[in-house]
Amino acid sequence: MATLATSVVDVCAEAKRAARVLAQTDTAVRDGALEAIAAALEERLEEILAANERDMAAAREAGARAAEPRAGDALLDRLRLDEGRVRAIARAVRQIVALEDPVGEVIDGHRLPNGLDVRKVRVPLGVVAVVYEARPNVTVDASALCLKSGNAIVLRGSSSAAHSNAVLAHVVAEAAVAAGLPEGCVSLVAGGGRAELAELATQKDTVDLIIPRGGEGLKDALQAVATVPVIYAASGNCHVYVDDSADLDHAQAIVVNAKTQRPGVCNAAETLLVHERIAAQLLARVLPALAAAGVVVRADPRSHAIASSCATPDLMIENAGDEDWATEYLAPVIAVAVVDCVEDAIEHIASYGSGHSEAIVTRELAAARAFQLGVDAACVYVNASTRFTDGGEFGMGAEIGNSTQKLHARGPIGLRELCTFKYLIEGDGHVRA
Amino acid sequence: MATLATSVVDVCAEAKRAARVLAQTDTAVRDGALEAIAAALEERLEEILAANERDMAAAREAGARAAEPRAGDALLDRLRLDEGRVRAIARAVRQIVALEDPVGEVIDGHRLPNGLDVRKVRVPLGVVAVVYEARPNVTVDASALCLKSGNAIVLRGSSSAAHSNAVLAHVVAEAAVAAGLPEGCVSLVAGGGRAELAELATQKDTVDLIIPRGGEGLKDALQAVATVPVIYAASGNCHVYVDDSADLDHAQAIVVNAKTQRPGVCNAAETLLVHERIAAQLLARVLPALAAAGVVVRADPRSHAIASSCATPDLMIENAGDEDWATEYLAPVIAVAVVDCVEDAIEHIASYGSGHSEAIVTRELAAARAFQLGVDAACVYVNASTRFTDGGEFGMGAEIGNSTQKLHARGPIGLRELCTFKYLIEGDGHVRA
Repeated sequence: MATLATSVVDVCAEAKRAARVLAQTDTAVRDGALEAIAAALEERLEEILAANERDMAAAREAGARAAEPRAGDALLDRLRLDEGRVRAIARAVRQIVALEDPVGEVIDGHRLPNGLDVRKVRVPLGVVAVVYEARPNVTVDASALCLKSGNAIVLRGSSSAAHSNAVLAHVVAEAAVAAGLPEGCVSLVAGGGRAELAELATQKDTVDLIIPRGGEGLKDALQAVATVPVIYAASGNCHVYVDDSADLDHAQAIVVNAKTQRPGVCNAAETLLVHERIAAQLLARVLPALAAAGVVVRADPRSHAIASSCATPDLMIENAGDEDWATEYLAPVIAVAVVDCVEDAIEHIASYGSGHSEAIVTRELAAARAFQLGVDAACVYVNASTRFTDGGEFGMGAEIGNSTQKLHARGPIGLRELCTFKYLIEGDGHVRA
Repeated sequence: MATLATSVVDVCAEAKRAARVLAQTDTAVRDGALEAIAAALEERLEEILAANERDMAAAREAGARAAEPRAGDALLDRLRLDEGRVRAIARAVRQIVALEDPVGEVIDGHRLPNGLDVRKVRVPLGVVAVVYEARPNVTVDASALCLKSGNAIVLRGSSSAAHSNAVLAHVVAEAAVAAGLPEGCVSLVAGGGRAELAELATQKDTVDLIIPRGGEGLKDALQAVATVPVIYAASGNCHVYVDDSADLDHAQAIVVNAKTQRPGVCNAAETLLVHERIAAQLLARVLPALAAAGVVVRADPRSHAIASSCATPDLMIENAGDEDWATEYLAPVIAVAVVDCVEDAIEHIASYGSGHSEAIVTRELAAARAFQLGVDAACVYVNASTRFTDGGEFGMGAEIGNSTQKLHARGPIGLRELCTFKYLIEGDGHVRA
């Protein structure tokens, strides 16, 4: 059971033993366990909410003592559970049941000239550690994705959600084991210290992958110590480039959507690049629309000159500094620059982009092709908003994060990305000459 | 050109610029460059051999001063180039030309319910650094694989082959650039110090992957400092398990092949596990055959008892200690243990295997299935020798090494494994609701 675990080393070793059993379970057993988890979350609602209230009380108390009490509001909202949120978590687990099992999928296969049959088959990674901050729903979401893909999971949440996470992990683990999954398939490492994080990040004999979900501080802390492979969730400095051949209605809709539909997430746009031939027309439409949505504009000299001529009362324009091109605002702020051609847009993105999601709006095939070929990013869009970079939107089902790394997982980290593969080779006494 | 490079930082930055151009080259251009490289190697044979002779002379001199001069013989053989070897290197480059281009391959693709078209397309990683010891042919082999897959390469060889590597890298780079590839697509970092290795291993803004090809010391040195992703070439503690239902002719052929066909490589077998019901019969056949090939046997108590009864004059049997099960001999030595069932064999492999290549010899489907499902390794064989784990044997063409990691590449690292992918998404003004 999750809460009885003693040391990080022991938890990981037990997870490894569980992983060996899990890797051999049938889809039906794992799906049955997820159904049981969803039911248990609903049945044990009061217990979960009581634990959450203890975290909330502690957070409120800490907030009252803090120098800037309003900063605590966002934390409290991330931390808070209520009946609706717990039912939504249970629903999300049932949605994962409905996804295709990645385990056992034959990725590739052929018969070699010497008669050996080779199959490349998807198998679970083994033990996945997920390190996360604040939101207690991650305890359940991440567990469900790992169990579905045949992996054992070791969770390490933040101390601010300790009571909520402990109860959720306990409910999940108990339901999973009762449904036939091995003991140790879901564990929570208690304690939020950096020393414990470092211990977890160096269990390379038992842990196959660490996925951090949190801010840059967490990433830096891991990068300094980890010997276990890490897939860092992405920061996204995403661009929309509007080509001179763009459909202006499309361009306006995409820029406004990419910036304002949910500004605080990694696939939101941070910079608008616009072709000089169309800049005046586009900015005259887009800037008032952004202003109406409360977006502040940081403009380069060329776009600033244009913007001044299309000023509406509520338009806030500031001068962009060099640091603006590299900034992920995660806020209602957008940097704007005029470029001379699609090549200049590609060059700008190569200099400042974080390899997450990049979009071009154009009607010209050559520009679309140049952009898709020339931009080095996980997701390259033509005539669509960067906001679509998401496992759910891509038809992969739920995701555990988004990767801007190039190895293993790039873009949404779904069930397949929680797997590795092995080659199965069958012969009839074959030996190498 | 390779030899004009100044600092590691500058070399990597130039490689990054080259990589952006390379990623957009057509197959024909890259293949033409490889043809030019092969031709240049043959044309500049004398220059290459002269440089190699300088390395050989230095190595001979160092060997004469060494405490154990015979240890230098293997080094000299690895270092030595002659006309035949250079022509073989050129031939290997031409074989890479013939391989399918992995760049641009559509791995997956579909139309989403909202009409967005999503394609997952293979693209080059960017800049690959290869760190290697002694063998100068790696300079050319690795360059050819990287250029074929659209990557720029930064080479870092050992100081013992400095002259050979410098000329080879220069010939390769000059031919590639003359054939239309960008300056900086092939570079050699001079100097073999640990400080320079650490500098290379931390260029995470420009280098996308480091592949070390060398001993454990090199791996340890990299693991301690690298912030760039590393794929460690494998050590292989490989097993052959002979089930009680095995065809004895097959079992004998596979054990002898896996152990003796080339004992010094990572896919050679190090331990024989044999089912107790068939142990006497099998060992009576296999041990004399191994003895005839000069193999020393390290036996557990049960197999030792049996082995004593089938002693032939040339059979050398020693008692296996605990450390034998974990040892990659890379030599004509084999550990032997009797196990009670396939589950025990799987358990032994889980405890001691390195996740490289594992084989079962059996006629029973249930045993084969249990072994393939239960053994966690890159390659799991049924009735075939572990020696087949090889990019060439698998039909992937040449390989740059073998990975026992689970992320990105597992097993042979061929052209596809030198690539990442990106999602290309096309819409018609799509925005997220």
